[in-house]
Amino acid sequence: MNGGPIEFYFDFSSPYGYLGAQRIDAIGAEFGRVVLWRPVLLGVIFKITGQSPLVSQTLRGPYAARDMARSARKLGVPFALPEGFPFSSVYACRIFYLLDGRSPEEAKKYARAVYHSAFAENRIVAEPEDAIALAATLGHDPSTIRAGMQEPAVKERLREETQQAMHKGVFGSPFVIVDGEPFWGNDRLGEVREWLQTGGW
Amino acid sequence: MNGGPIEFYFDFSSPYGYLGAQRIDAIGAEFGRVVLWRPVLLGVIFKITGQSPLVSQTLRGPYAARDMARSARKLGVPFALPEGFPFSSVYACRIFYLLDGRSPEEAKKYARAVYHSAFAENRIVAEPEDAIALAATLGHDPSTIRAGMQEPAVKERLREETQQAMHKGVFGSPFVIVDGEPFWGNDRLGEVREWLQTGGW
Repeated sequence: MNGGPIEFYFDFSSPYGYLGAQRIDAIGAEFGRVVLWRPVLLGVIFKITGQSPLVSQTLRGPYAARDMARSARKLGVPFALPEGFPFSSVYACRIFYLLDGRSPEEAKKYARAVYHSAFAENRIVAEPEDAIALAATLGHDPSTIRAGMQEPAVKERLREETQQAMHKGVFGSPFVIVDGEPFWGNDRLGEVREWLQTGGW
Repeated sequence: MNGGPIEFYFDFSSPYGYLGAQRIDAIGAEFGRVVLWRPVLLGVIFKITGQSPLVSQTLRGPYAARDMARSARKLGVPFALPEGFPFSSVYACRIFYLLDGRSPEEAKKYARAVYHSAFAENRIVAEPEDAIALAATLGHDPSTIRAGMQEPAVKERLREETQQAMHKGVFGSPFVIVDGEPFWGNDRLGEVREWLQTGGW
């Protein structure tokens, strides 16, 4: 490894987070960097910043919907805003951190599955049982997951990561921090790559 | 000319508009497209969309200030947020459209001078006399400009362009429309170029 980890902050209900998740690990691998995936509850941060979800905003909303689809076409990945969007991702987040405590790779697999379900298969992962059932498709025991996601330490980890994110200046999704340098937005991943390649400017 | 004009919407008080203005004409020239510069009053549009200026927003503000400086360094252009920022650009806009009625090239020269004064020389162009004096440095007669910028047709043109922009979905600066396709942000100019090159995706 050539340097510290890349921090990849995202919200499971974020279309641009879904798009960013398609590329961030390849960028990390190219430069020998570990990528730490960190789902957070953007709704909690929005309460502090006074923002509202992008797609519900006048003028910005229709543009965002068009741009999301266009950005997905460019990447060649399936994309549609699912019914029930935006959705609460607290249970998916808890399962992520439950898995992350044992294996970051298993947690990433779960995160990719949540994103794929929501934005490629029109099935949001909002209810506890939906979040558990998705984990089961990856081979995790449902009752172990159901019990684990109620652990105070898991709930606390999610709260802590969301607070940490805010303290680091995270206000949107995806939000990447590399060597202390913050980059907001899927459309900045090219710059993240250049930053890693050049050491910054 | 290979196609219709590129519409380049911006606000004179927009740092990202200043950065976009450094590159948009070269992109137009590369693909044989006329670039129509269209300054608008983003404050009028923000009243409809409920947005506030970026730099005054929690978390987003500090990030934006950092990103503006970083983006300017990447382009190799001088940049600093001027005292008095954000500033009212109504008089600069009126002079722009006064000049544009006679010569779009003269209007562009004036627009570049407004941006350079504000973001490279720490002199905002907010007061009528500042806006007139800047036009004078480009060889325009101050009393002709002073009289012209009061013409109802000039004021009406600015109102009309701002309304038109809104109807086309413009909600930020810079905002580029090419063959009906909208692109928001200085960081999307690379995509504008690709769109022109490939015909879209």
